[in-house]
Amino acid sequence: MDAVAIVSELALKARAAARTLSSSTGAQRKAALLAIADEIDKRSAEIVAANAKDIERAHADAMHPQTVDRLFLTPERVKGIANGARLVADLEDPLGHTLRESTLPNGLHLLQKSVPFGVIGMVYEARPNVTVDAAVILLMSGNAALLRGSSSAAASNQVLVNVMRDALATTKISPEVLQLVPSDDRATVKALLNARGKVDLVIPRGSAALIRMVVDESTVPTIETGAGVCHVFVDESADIEKALPILINSKTHRPSVCNAAETLLVHRSIAATFLPMALIALSDAGVILHCDATSQKVADTFKIASTLATEDNWCTEYGVLEMNVAVVDSVDAASDHIAKYGTNHTEAIVSEDQSSIDRFIALSDCAAVMVNTSTRFTDGEQMGFGAEIGISNQKLHARGPMGLEAMTTTTWIVTGNGQIRN
Amino acid sequence: MDAVAIVSELALKARAAARTLSSSTGAQRKAALLAIADEIDKRSAEIVAANAKDIERAHADAMHPQTVDRLFLTPERVKGIANGARLVADLEDPLGHTLRESTLPNGLHLLQKSVPFGVIGMVYEARPNVTVDAAVILLMSGNAALLRGSSSAAASNQVLVNVMRDALATTKISPEVLQLVPSDDRATVKALLNARGKVDLVIPRGSAALIRMVVDESTVPTIETGAGVCHVFVDESADIEKALPILINSKTHRPSVCNAAETLLVHRSIAATFLPMALIALSDAGVILHCDATSQKVADTFKIASTLATEDNWCTEYGVLEMNVAVVDSVDAASDHIAKYGTNHTEAIVSEDQSSIDRFIALSDCAAVMVNTSTRFTDGEQMGFGAEIGISNQKLHARGPMGLEAMTTTTWIVTGNGQIRN
Repeated sequence: MDAVAIVSELALKARAAARTLSSSTGAQRKAALLAIADEIDKRSAEIVAANAKDIERAHADAMHPQTVDRLFLTPERVKGIANGARLVADLEDPLGHTLRESTLPNGLHLLQKSVPFGVIGMVYEARPNVTVDAAVILLMSGNAALLRGSSSAAASNQVLVNVMRDALATTKISPEVLQLVPSDDRATVKALLNARGKVDLVIPRGSAALIRMVVDESTVPTIETGAGVCHVFVDESADIEKALPILINSKTHRPSVCNAAETLLVHRSIAATFLPMALIALSDAGVILHCDATSQKVADTFKIASTLATEDNWCTEYGVLEMNVAVVDSVDAASDHIAKYGTNHTEAIVSEDQSSIDRFIALSDCAAVMVNTSTRFTDGEQMGFGAEIGISNQKLHARGPMGLEAMTTTTWIVTGNGQIRN
Repeated sequence: MDAVAIVSELALKARAAARTLSSSTGAQRKAALLAIADEIDKRSAEIVAANAKDIERAHADAMHPQTVDRLFLTPERVKGIANGARLVADLEDPLGHTLRESTLPNGLHLLQKSVPFGVIGMVYEARPNVTVDAAVILLMSGNAALLRGSSSAAASNQVLVNVMRDALATTKISPEVLQLVPSDDRATVKALLNARGKVDLVIPRGSAALIRMVVDESTVPTIETGAGVCHVFVDESADIEKALPILINSKTHRPSVCNAAETLLVHRSIAATFLPMALIALSDAGVILHCDATSQKVADTFKIASTLATEDNWCTEYGVLEMNVAVVDSVDAASDHIAKYGTNHTEAIVSEDQSSIDRFIALSDCAAVMVNTSTRFTDGEQMGFGAEIGISNQKLHARGPMGLEAMTTTTWIVTGNGQIRN
């Protein structure tokens, strides 16, 4: 079978089985998730053994150590995956909520309630934990899942899906709601992206290149996630005691994720004070610096290595310990830089002046503005959602961290007793 | 300039001017809409004269009379357009609403509020009233608008945009927030659909072919509107006194719009009673019938002309007085037919049996289920939204009629006093 036929068949199986989800109670879905968590715990050794095959292949392919680490599953990490499923099982059921309700003058009763999308495709890269993390969020929100992971995690993903389906077989939910899309053929991604009418939504998680491909190729609606060129702007009124830890945390706490900062913008009035300590602290933390002319002078003065930043640098989501630095003349100039180079994800301002903060917020066009705090807080768990399936940096449907609620749509039920329109 | 450059320039002008909208108060936007309404009233004769040129060209091109009618503006219709703008001006401001707010254990304050998208492109067909209807909804929700109407309405659209921009020039809102995209080149549609990063959202309104093109071509996020193959299902327990008017209203009240019904499904148990009167009433109303074998026998018995429905018929949104008829064995069979041929828009059930109604709702996957009422009620104004920019029949972001609220997105403002992530 070709990729289109394979994906089409998986989608139809998932859609047929999705009725067991759309007609299920929250308690039944919760029980299904707990069964999955228990089965993962029980079969941890099997999962780790399958993962070892992926790791062996990764080493043979000379994969980057950081990528190997993302792929790697230890018994402890498997335990973490199972516990993640339990956390989602404990969240409030997002389905069947009444969102709006009214009775019109003509007697029609209007009820808008939350319902599942139906079948959601996930396209993601190396991390095998996403296979479970995504599956349980989609199941809890009543959606069947087509999971298209990376070929580098093929053995891990296969056993994780087997384990979850075996667990579902003991519950009211059909195992067919989870389908692993073969990753041995790149064409299955395109087939998934074009399974319009069969797949209701596709969510890509991964590199900017992956997301761009999804946006370009897809006829199925998508939610763009992840690409984050985030900025930390240190205003003239900034409290340096706050600014320095916020900067270092935003850049170095976990540089590989989308809410890590890539660019530091410093108000000219505070540059003489703040820049030397900022550049030294970044350099001490192992951050490679790409500076504008003004900040490079400061770097040179303190014998800190740097390159002169190019247009490419300002646009780059490094994912590693590299950072751009620029001096700007005002809040507006900072916002102009961000509007030009940012990706509408997360922008931080460090300032003690409320009018500067308000102006920065008003000029921002992003999923989250961080005021005197780290960019790293744009995160579903940190923001109290309990779990997240990704961080949307598009404006349609969901913006910022997406929890269970973002995986639902709505329907109107309009009840009358024979009304017609005049 | 080529189409890409033209659209790019218009989008950048609109985005720069959009700051006058995103920083405006609701009262300022309301005043802008009232100024637009007054200017339309004042220059009604000019608008009608420009429209006369489009009508003349339409006649010369032997345009279908129904399409000419959609294009046609009378002084009365112009008055209606102005009053429509006044109705939108009276609606509640959709911006700045607090959607969620909380304080986390670490002291971070989270605020999610509604904000404009930014720049929204509209791609639509003949009706020139859409130029104003869409513009005022987008302005009231704080968005700049790129309006790409039909070349057949070019003169009407140009004068309507001139009038609106002249009105804006007297207000706090920059006239540049409204941009008419030239319709003399089809390439401008594609340029608009691919102005990713410059345009935040594109909404197509029009034929299935237009919407399909938008879905296929667009890299800008879109909201699919309009294609409606809607069904009326008459259950075995239906009250025929309700069923007949609902059927006739759903099909004939305004056959050209998306919430008109295209297919009648009749439960076998009630077919002998209901079908003869239904087919006679439809035929008397001038409806051309496309029947399945069972219903065609009934049509033949009563000497009502019909064709045997083909696969194409079941999928067709006629937009005119034609209707498919089929007899089904159960609620589930009706739902199966709808799942196979429907477009997830509006499905009606006529039934006095709550368990059948509940089953029909549970199996439906559409924007609106009508219970004992006409499909024609899936409409923003009828549902009390005050105005609508279109009817979404996708599941992402907005489903069903879209009012002002659907034209907003959200942002998070996270305020701390130096918190970093551990």
